[in-house]
Amino acid sequence: MKKFAVILSGCGVFDGAEIQEAVLTLLAIDKLGATYQCFAPDMLQYHVLDHLTGKEMPEKRNVLIESARIARGKIEPLDRFKAGEFDALVFPGGFGCAKNLSTWAYEGDRCTVLPSVEKAVMAMFEAKKPIGAMCIAPVILAKLFKGSNFTTGDDTSSGSFIRKMGNKFTPADHGEVVIDRVRNLFTTPCYMLDATISQIAEGTENLVREMLKTA
Amino acid sequence: MKKFAVILSGCGVFDGAEIQEAVLTLLAIDKLGATYQCFAPDMLQYHVLDHLTGKEMPEKRNVLIESARIARGKIEPLDRFKAGEFDALVFPGGFGCAKNLSTWAYEGDRCTVLPSVEKAVMAMFEAKKPIGAMCIAPVILAKLFKGSNFTTGDDTSSGSFIRKMGNKFTPADHGEVVIDRVRNLFTTPCYMLDATISQIAEGTENLVREMLKTA
Repeated sequence: MKKFAVILSGCGVFDGAEIQEAVLTLLAIDKLGATYQCFAPDMLQYHVLDHLTGKEMPEKRNVLIESARIARGKIEPLDRFKAGEFDALVFPGGFGCAKNLSTWAYEGDRCTVLPSVEKAVMAMFEAKKPIGAMCIAPVILAKLFKGSNFTTGDDTSSGSFIRKMGNKFTPADHGEVVIDRVRNLFTTPCYMLDATISQIAEGTENLVREMLKTA
Repeated sequence: MKKFAVILSGCGVFDGAEIQEAVLTLLAIDKLGATYQCFAPDMLQYHVLDHLTGKEMPEKRNVLIESARIARGKIEPLDRFKAGEFDALVFPGGFGCAKNLSTWAYEGDRCTVLPSVEKAVMAMFEAKKPIGAMCIAPVILAKLFKGSNFTTGDDTSSGSFIRKMGNKFTPADHGEVVIDRVRNLFTTPCYMLDATISQIAEGTENLVREMLKTA
């Protein structure tokens, strides 16, 4: 059975992992006959947002502890990730990818990628294993690779960043997967587009299915 | 299109709504051609648990605000629920059902059900509309009804409570739905059994499909 590492970035679309994308990624992996292990960095979130009002809350939360809510406690700190133990690596979306796993949301073109995330991605890339990213998560890959091809749906802001980093931006519709066959990188828009939850399930399943072909 | 009200009890299996069950309930509703609106009570959670260690955290969180993470902000306070606007009512599981929506987890047989939850359930019942509950959520219905028939999988503790409240407890396996056709009540085990995420998707879909037949 092929084994996926799923990197979570918190628990909630505005300050962490997009919950529906994360759950539907796990469902797609299980449904298509593979297994998964969740990971998240053991660090404080950039901030905590009230998901009802969008306002910042005077709290501190830990990315690993909050991500554990999605994984029902079955999660490992990202620094324990070993590429040799996995066949594929995937990032569900959510602003946690742009606030916790990278600094794109508040540093834009000058953003950095969390060292443990960069290490995991590059180890999988060097082993020629598939790496997937949905929603806003492709900004992480766009910062780490050049001459590649990514989608974040029809979003102009992340699309412009992807191009500035020396990559091609390909607009994509619901459920479509943009594939860089040279580097084995897979991206799909999910909630970067206004979508129904069934469209998210379709996107995550298409992404995982394409990744499994090269895993 | 049939419209479901989905009552959430926080965000995380140990102190709130079971995230995977909640998301897969929304997916099942959308996939089967109905629509949904999420609700949660605007109140403090009973407590906050670290989902990595299981230990209590010295924090306070609000059930509605945390539930909004699952619903991507599209959620209403439960006291705004109007039975006339919906065709069906469903409770995903998670200990939030037994700690926030009712006090079953810490008061057992002497537990109470949150007034806004009781009001919503009884209004739907009086309108002869289907009510569904998964995982541990059937303890709420068991407290409010007598002579009914419920499942919580093979769990002896909640099974014994269901019987003490004057109802029948029917053990059930993955994906099975126990139906009380007289009262239009639907229950399924989900994570009360050791399950894969695909089995949860099957359970939520079977529950929603059965509910839609009478909605």
